[in-house]
Amino acid sequence: MAGNSFGKLFNLTTFGESHGIAIGGVIDGCPSNIVLDFEAIQNEMNRRKPGQSSIVTQRKEPDEVKFLSGIFEGKTTGTPIGFVIENANQKSNDYSHIKDSYRPSHADYVYDKKYGHRDYRGGGRSSARETASRVVAGAIAKQVLKDIKINAFTSSVGDIFIDKPYQDLDFSKIESNDIRCPDQDIAEKMIARVKEIRKEGDTIGGTITCVIQNVPVGLGEPVFDKLHADLGKAMLSINAVKGFEYGSGFCGAKMKGSEHNDLYHNDGTTKTNLSGGIQGGISNGMDIYFRVAFKPVATIMQKQETINKDGNTVEMQGKGRHDPCVLPRAVPIVEAMAALVLADFWLLNKMY
Amino acid sequence: MAGNSFGKLFNLTTFGESHGIAIGGVIDGCPSNIVLDFEAIQNEMNRRKPGQSSIVTQRKEPDEVKFLSGIFEGKTTGTPIGFVIENANQKSNDYSHIKDSYRPSHADYVYDKKYGHRDYRGGGRSSARETASRVVAGAIAKQVLKDIKINAFTSSVGDIFIDKPYQDLDFSKIESNDIRCPDQDIAEKMIARVKEIRKEGDTIGGTITCVIQNVPVGLGEPVFDKLHADLGKAMLSINAVKGFEYGSGFCGAKMKGSEHNDLYHNDGTTKTNLSGGIQGGISNGMDIYFRVAFKPVATIMQKQETINKDGNTVEMQGKGRHDPCVLPRAVPIVEAMAALVLADFWLLNKMY
Amino acid sequence: MAGNSFGKLFNLTTFGESHGIAIGGVIDGCPSNIVLDFEAIQNEMNRRKPGQSSIVTQRKEPDEVKFLSGIFEGKTTGTPIGFVIENANQKSNDYSHIKDSYRPSHADYVYDKKYGHRDYRGGGRSSARETASRVVAGAIAKQVLKDIKINAFTSSVGDIFIDKPYQDLDFSKIESNDIRCPDQDIAEKMIARVKEIRKEGDTIGGTITCVIQNVPVGLGEPVFDKLHADLGKAMLSINAVKGFEYGSGFCGAKMKGSEHNDLYHNDGTTKTNLSGGIQGGISNGMDIYFRVAFKPVATIMQKQETINKDGNTVEMQGKGRHDPCVLPRAVPIVEAMAALVLADFWLLNKMY
Amino acid sequence: MAGNSFGKLFNLTTFGESHGIAIGGVIDGCPSNIVLDFEAIQNEMNRRKPGQSSIVTQRKEPDEVKFLSGIFEGKTTGTPIGFVIENANQKSNDYSHIKDSYRPSHADYVYDKKYGHRDYRGGGRSSARETASRVVAGAIAKQVLKDIKINAFTSSVGDIFIDKPYQDLDFSKIESNDIRCPDQDIAEKMIARVKEIRKEGDTIGGTITCVIQNVPVGLGEPVFDKLHADLGKAMLSINAVKGFEYGSGFCGAKMKGSEHNDLYHNDGTTKTNLSGGIQGGISNGMDIYFRVAFKPVATIMQKQETINKDGNTVEMQGKGRHDPCVLPRAVPIVEAMAALVLADFWLLNKMY
Repeated sequence: MAGNSFGKLFNLTTFGESHGIAIGGVIDGCPSNIVLDFEAIQNEMNRRKPGQSSIVTQRKEPDEVKFLSGIFEGKTTGTPIGFVIENANQKSNDYSHIKDSYRPSHADYVYDKKYGHRDYRGGGRSSARETASRVVAGAIAKQVLKDIKINAFTSSVGDIFIDKPYQDLDFSKIESNDIRCPDQDIAEKMIARVKEIRKEGDTIGGTITCVIQNVPVGLGEPVFDKLHADLGKAMLSINAVKGFEYGSGFCGAKMKGSEHNDLYHNDGTTKTNLSGGIQGGISNGMDIYFRVAFKPVATIMQKQETINKDGNTVEMQGKGRHDPCVLPRAVPIVEAMAALVLADFWLLNKMY
Repeated sequence: MAGNSFGKLFNLTTFGESHGIAIGGVIDGCPSNIVLDFEAIQNEMNRRKPGQSSIVTQRKEPDEVKFLSGIFEGKTTGTPIGFVIENANQKSNDYSHIKDSYRPSHADYVYDKKYGHRDYRGGGRSSARETASRVVAGAIAKQVLKDIKINAFTSSVGDIFIDKPYQDLDFSKIESNDIRCPDQDIAEKMIARVKEIRKEGDTIGGTITCVIQNVPVGLGEPVFDKLHADLGKAMLSINAVKGFEYGSGFCGAKMKGSEHNDLYHNDGTTKTNLSGGIQGGISNGMDIYFRVAFKPVATIMQKQETINKDGNTVEMQGKGRHDPCVLPRAVPIVEAMAALVLADFWLLNKMY
Repeated sequence: MAGNSFGKLFNLTTFGESHGIAIGGVIDGCPSNIVLDFEAIQNEMNRRKPGQSSIVTQRKEPDEVKFLSGIFEGKTTGTPIGFVIENANQKSNDYSHIKDSYRPSHADYVYDKKYGHRDYRGGGRSSARETASRVVAGAIAKQVLKDIKINAFTSSVGDIFIDKPYQDLDFSKIESNDIRCPDQDIAEKMIARVKEIRKEGDTIGGTITCVIQNVPVGLGEPVFDKLHADLGKAMLSINAVKGFEYGSGFCGAKMKGSEHNDLYHNDGTTKTNLSGGIQGGISNGMDIYFRVAFKPVATIMQKQETINKDGNTVEMQGKGRHDPCVLPRAVPIVEAMAALVLADFWLLNKMY
Repeated sequence: MAGNSFGKLFNLTTFGESHGIAIGGVIDGCPSNIVLDFEAIQNEMNRRKPGQSSIVTQRKEPDEVKFLSGIFEGKTTGTPIGFVIENANQKSNDYSHIKDSYRPSHADYVYDKKYGHRDYRGGGRSSARETASRVVAGAIAKQVLKDIKINAFTSSVGDIFIDKPYQDLDFSKIESNDIRCPDQDIAEKMIARVKEIRKEGDTIGGTITCVIQNVPVGLGEPVFDKLHADLGKAMLSINAVKGFEYGSGFCGAKMKGSEHNDLYHNDGTTKTNLSGGIQGGISNGMDIYFRVAFKPVATIMQKQETINKDGNTVEMQGKGRHDPCVLPRAVPIVEAMAALVLADFWLLNKMY
């Protein structure tokens, strides 16, 4: 109820603050007898990890996951998978300047008001560091899902965007550049933009597109737990996300029914896919695709006025090593959350 | 788990198909001792009801809600509130033509595949008729929330949109026209557009904006159950919704941190509100606002090719009385779902 | 959260007060394509219904269940099954004498304190009338479970008890007498005892034993959701229940390990079954059996002193038609709750 | 859903196997700003720990809990409390003899059948070692509950039992002997009995009684989540428990209503308390008391026949250091689970 668990049958509970001893989580409901590929898990961690390239924060976190339970002789046992990731940065003194002040557009103010007691070290629980635990669980969910393929990529940075449909992109190129954009020309422009922004001590937003393929027909529950409603919630639960659209999305709101309807081939596939692979909340076997909007990182290396606990105006400037743009590191988080949702509905669908 | 319940503490379970005997629901967790305003509840029902104006379906449903429990001497007792709404239209024969065929961009195909048994009468459970039960519960949630004000309105139809910030609109005008747009000039254009579309036998999409005011600081849970994540899920669970954005939304993805950050006044309110009243998933006391994208209604009065159960191509044309545009009837549904989310977090926040 | 729902995958939500318009419920998660035997459902209702024999309350309630949704052409559709049972007795004036007083060992006092507003008509929500909805859902759960057989029977009334192991009883005799005891000699003594007690204006407690056969190996989840823990909760949620034991139960607490251990046959069945068909919370394929203790009905036809709202002493005497002993009517309720638990775990086990 | 979480608002998820790296858990929903008494937590751990006295297993486990999150400057922050307890015994080779065999009345057989993959080291997840995590969470729950006092004690071992009502016992004596029985004479007899049993290489069952005092009126939810139903489930989820009764319990089933009803004092307290502090599932402010039956430990130091994976008969004898009687170590577990249930309902009751 306090919001640190996600999923019904494939359930993840996370814990940990950015500057505590460790973060981690418990995965409950993972089927037994899955031979885990630990390298694949660590690889997902590396995609999210700070310091991986010149356009992300240069903070150092090895982000090695240590499994404590639920795995025996390399296979899942069906019991809960407990895991921890140590915080290498835990003893940082970087945050004394924000101890009594509220950083603009951060969660400092609301946490203080809600809980009456705040872990001021780097955002504590509200830090995106928590998402490392989601990536662990998502990497395992991907292995549960086997044939279902989930690919996310950076589709825009500021006003630079990919102007092709995803069908024209080569997903194998996503990892070939630091911004995780499969269109190399656009990727270069995005990277240049991020570097420029960082020089200004500023940050920039963007969007991530995610495509899920080989989904069987029937995932999702009607009415409240529609597949896209749970995907939307999953994405909106990621730090800095401001919007979610799937299939035709906001563009669909401008269209006419005669333009928007997806007519059938005789085999039940559809000629177009404005539905985004989901009808009535249930997967129809076509590609699921959606787009997620990320706001610019709130911590900027420029002076800003803000207030302290007493309501007095104070000046503040970001210190330390922060991301000028979260997108490249958010790509594996989007995939992880998508995998969690899919694994949950995939298990639930076994009931039928 | 099968997706017919919504909410944790303030919980709604709905049942019923469009052409069954009745639809209805159970509200569990409504606080006791609330003096219910039954006229206000029926008024919300009337806002959603078919036949209310010339631009919506002319189907006739009195949509009178009958409460069976949980209320005694005009006040809630704290026990579950059971209610039913009879289906006046239940004996319709209008749907024989779709018995064995799958209507394009409807849920017919996926229901048949998922359940192996389909109630073909008008979509059955996948029909938006189900949302009448949500409006009942939402109307009660509004009464629980008292001072928190929730106003939704049609902000675009096709490519016609309100080009003012919501602060410049007079919400008291929302109910003064059939499309539920508070800007009278735009409303007229929207209505004309819907009539034109209807003449073509076509349908049109649009967006609804919702503004929630007088929200206390502290609603929402960090990490997975962020206030906007649950609002997003709530909206995406409404039939025909393709997208959700709050605060700066997709526009925020184009901005720089220095432009996007909301600086503080000394009293903790913010000078701008690109955050949309929510920071780190928790309400900060500023207005919450979000936008919801609706696709055009899938049932059109034009001939379309589709397939039947055997995979053969058949021709189909919408029959009966359908909405050319769902927006005016969706406005109270958006408000209802917002009220359910807020009531839930409001109760949960009493824990702290 | 407010406690009116039961079950995870096979979920029942009930509503309704003893003297409101109707009681009813919603079953969510019932698999599709089950051809329902409506006569079997009504038969379970008749076993619970008042007025069925000379040793139960002579109140008249037809207790006919009306299904509103989730069933089409005689089969379940996979959508929620909504149902109502009208309260024939709703306009009774029998309860004016308890309006401001608290009946001893009833829930009147705690409801008033908890909710600050009380439906004083016959206990309202705390009345065992609510269990009629459980019997509906349980009857459907039995049909879901097919081969799993659930038989409950009255095993003691006051100090009269069956002194044979259940293996020596003929379950087909349970319905052959009014007390639902398969041992005819004991049944006669029990019935005589109940009649005697009724003459005194008093009531009497007893126990019900339940045996579940043909259970597959593997139902139940380890740790918190052990099969017997959920069975225990289910039974303890029935009105008037004071205790639950399974397998060797409280007797097992007096035994030595060398006496209590169930040794294996080579096929994995066990030579003895003190475990009661459950080991480590998971069914092992042997018979599950448990015993449930019911206190005597609190409403007696004798004068008792009690207090009113103002804390003044008042005299009270039961009016109307009450059960001298709940056991015969509780037998189908015990079976229904057992069926709900089993159906839930049976569905959950499909995940593995 | 997979059964490793307990509680709604005050929620505990546990992980870990007896011979894995560590066990641990996550407490979600603990209120913020509670100044934790860490010594009190460790003290509870010591009460459950092996090797604490001569009548329990002589295995060595320091059982020191390490908190990883949710606590800052000695106070809870409202974020999830993650913790781990290392397994000192993890590298034991003691269990090779049971690798392919099923210990009688253990969970080996059902785990193997359910999951198709078994952690054979000492029971793995089914080991009572898991309850150490419950004791951590229960110790914190006790601190949340402040004035509510929870005292459990050994009330019988085999056929030796305390023959006084709990009101005649001095709870401050519970910790003064190794069996945790507040009646010193009976305690000595119990201890002698356990030593005798151990010499025989056998084990013995018994009962624990728990008394909860200073409970406010109103805890518990009607219908399915009755306070005693959740207490019952909590107790039945503890390893080796076979039965639960509260208030008059199974004895109440032999009584008449005129004997069993608790009449009121003018202040709303009752003259007797056969109800056990709970009426209609809701606490009435009187002492809550219940009794829990534990079977004898299944691992005995005597030869037993059993079967292996291939269904062949093999001989088996317990090795290592096991408890001849779980009761003294189970006392803090019973208290911990009671505290978790109470904390959950106490938080939930703030909603009203």
